[in-house]
Amino acid sequence: MDTPVVELWETLSGKYGEEAESLLIWRFQDPYSKRWYGLRYDLTVPLARYIAMHPETPLPFKRHQIALVWRHEEPQHMRYREFVQADVDVVGSPYPEADAEVLSAVQHALEYVGIPDVFVRLSHRKLLKAVFEKELGLANPTPVYRIIDKLDKIGVKGVEQELKRLGMSDATISRILRLIDTRAKGLDGVDALRTISSAAVVSAALNELKEIIELSYKPEKIVVDLSLVRGLDYYTGPIMEFQLEKESGPSLAGGGRYDDLIGLFRPQGSLPATGCSIGVERVLDVLLERGGTKPGVETTSKVLVVYLESELFKYAWSIAFKLRQHGIPAEIDLLRRAESKQRRRASSLNIPYVLIIGRHEASTGRFALYCRETKERLELGFEELVNFLKSVVQNGD
Amino acid sequence: MDTPVVELWETLSGKYGEEAESLLIWRFQDPYSKRWYGLRYDLTVPLARYIAMHPETPLPFKRHQIALVWRHEEPQHMRYREFVQADVDVVGSPYPEADAEVLSAVQHALEYVGIPDVFVRLSHRKLLKAVFEKELGLANPTPVYRIIDKLDKIGVKGVEQELKRLGMSDATISRILRLIDTRAKGLDGVDALRTISSAAVVSAALNELKEIIELSYKPEKIVVDLSLVRGLDYYTGPIMEFQLEKESGPSLAGGGRYDDLIGLFRPQGSLPATGCSIGVERVLDVLLERGGTKPGVETTSKVLVVYLESELFKYAWSIAFKLRQHGIPAEIDLLRRAESKQRRRASSLNIPYVLIIGRHEASTGRFALYCRETKERLELGFEELVNFLKSVVQNGD
Repeated sequence: MDTPVVELWETLSGKYGEEAESLLIWRFQDPYSKRWYGLRYDLTVPLARYIAMHPETPLPFKRHQIALVWRHEEPQHMRYREFVQADVDVVGSPYPEADAEVLSAVQHALEYVGIPDVFVRLSHRKLLKAVFEKELGLANPTPVYRIIDKLDKIGVKGVEQELKRLGMSDATISRILRLIDTRAKGLDGVDALRTISSAAVVSAALNELKEIIELSYKPEKIVVDLSLVRGLDYYTGPIMEFQLEKESGPSLAGGGRYDDLIGLFRPQGSLPATGCSIGVERVLDVLLERGGTKPGVETTSKVLVVYLESELFKYAWSIAFKLRQHGIPAEIDLLRRAESKQRRRASSLNIPYVLIIGRHEASTGRFALYCRETKERLELGFEELVNFLKSVVQNGD
Repeated sequence: MDTPVVELWETLSGKYGEEAESLLIWRFQDPYSKRWYGLRYDLTVPLARYIAMHPETPLPFKRHQIALVWRHEEPQHMRYREFVQADVDVVGSPYPEADAEVLSAVQHALEYVGIPDVFVRLSHRKLLKAVFEKELGLANPTPVYRIIDKLDKIGVKGVEQELKRLGMSDATISRILRLIDTRAKGLDGVDALRTISSAAVVSAALNELKEIIELSYKPEKIVVDLSLVRGLDYYTGPIMEFQLEKESGPSLAGGGRYDDLIGLFRPQGSLPATGCSIGVERVLDVLLERGGTKPGVETTSKVLVVYLESELFKYAWSIAFKLRQHGIPAEIDLLRRAESKQRRRASSLNIPYVLIIGRHEASTGRFALYCRETKERLELGFEELVNFLKSVVQNGD
């Protein structure tokens, strides 16, 4: 499943929160129709619109999507205006097993690409809402979420100052700071959190978090962390973020349950859904830093066909084409250069084999294949040549 | 290599021609910086900008890119506002072998996906320019190209009328109509075209077309067709379009040489380049019509894990996870439904196998696997089960 890059403004508007709405969404007016549009800001809201427009979709509906999104930020380290998200979502199930499946898929994916040292911060919007509204008497906790969401950027002191600016009492602020300092590991740890509030909704939320942990791929890598609030408006239940164990810095993935979002797009009302989004550039940055992968300008070509005289060009060209027809990526000079300059392309693009076409080869149909690494030189008939190079392609040498 | 979706307006402006400039490019002003931007209109201009900004790129540079582009057209059959182009380009070679390599790559690609019945229309901008300017005395042939480019939509009569509206004499119009009725097949056919003009540039262009045909993957599928002019402004040499042999309708791919485009982005001047773009949706439409491929809502899951009692859910869940760890895509109900409703997902998503988890299976560790197609029922230990399903995954059943 894929969704368009350009969405109507009314599809995006009112879904992400104030900062996105007023600044971060790339929005624009079509100069011809005068309609307002926006570039895809995440993969979740377009999915919700899609589901609302396609009531025939069999539920539960699971999808993954790897696609570009846009944010109108000042470009800086690890923050891009155009970047790739990889999302997994389950639409149609209200149960913690759906959240656990999403969480597990991301745990598994990060492990699979070579980043197993990740822990999951888990929290719950219903729990936070109950505590903020019922225990602390805040009618609208959203501005408080936005401040807490900046914790890793501005620190506890910064959060304290910004909460003061909201006009809160010192007592309330210290309760908030205590709350967001709450971490619990393991199923017993979750039970210890029951002292926070006796409200039934808090107890139910904690039960959900327990079930999610229990059903997940790596329960020991999950920490309940009430400083996790997530910036986006549309979350309604369990929320999660994936972070490297030993380093601070931006999260590698994040998501949560958004049971009310699809209902905004359809008269039939809401439909439970949950998902998580991996920041692909951040994952690549981690892999690059660790040297597990490297950016390359290398070609996929396995053999450079070199011709010794310009009269042999057409013959050499036909050999290159025949190799390609056998699935062997072959290069041949396109600049009509002398042999020594043709050869340079093998080293500049790191092409492992060089096939020499001289008069002798053209007349006998036997070919000289030179391996750049071992400096070996093989003499082969065309069929042997094809089989040899096919095995090179298959072995990925 | 990939390029951004959003380009500065000045990057796109002045490259594609009047209609694109004034209507077809999705352009917009950033409400914050007031800068003008546009959505990627093709993959060629961004490539040219990239090459100009990266003079360190080793030449010849070959790239392929499969990516979205946007055109502000009225959506209709086979015309989309957002669609995918698959491009191949060679930057840095002025020789016909580069054009032949591009042309051959597209011939090969279309054959590879199952559309071998394609012919290539080949023309040459230098030849057209020479004939229009020198033989017909037109100072600026661009408006004439635009009219000829609509030939398949408006027919010969339509072209004639529109040329009249430009104020042309009947004699000139009839020469143009004769010119665009010119088709030549094979190398001898190209030589027969030498009567069109004795200008040296025409003769050189015909030599280039001959070489391209000679060096191409399927020379017999190439027709020189002087009604092919291509709509975009930036072409400077050989141009090509790929069409189904038996049907009219829009082309599947098109491209050509654009030796001056990169020079617009850099002080060092121009750099020869040539490329071709496949319309991916059009290729898919052809394949869908032929039934060679079909759109599917099918899952990749190979096995549905069904549990007979809710007490067995966690055990069944752990089995589903273990199968996934072995690379076997497994589904399990996320709606806490009774067995018969769980099973429905296998038929609605066409999942080939159903694994039944009852008390007996949970206690003995032997599993009942049911094949929906053959109605066979296997009883297997866990290891046998994994090996069996692994072979299902590998065979792609």
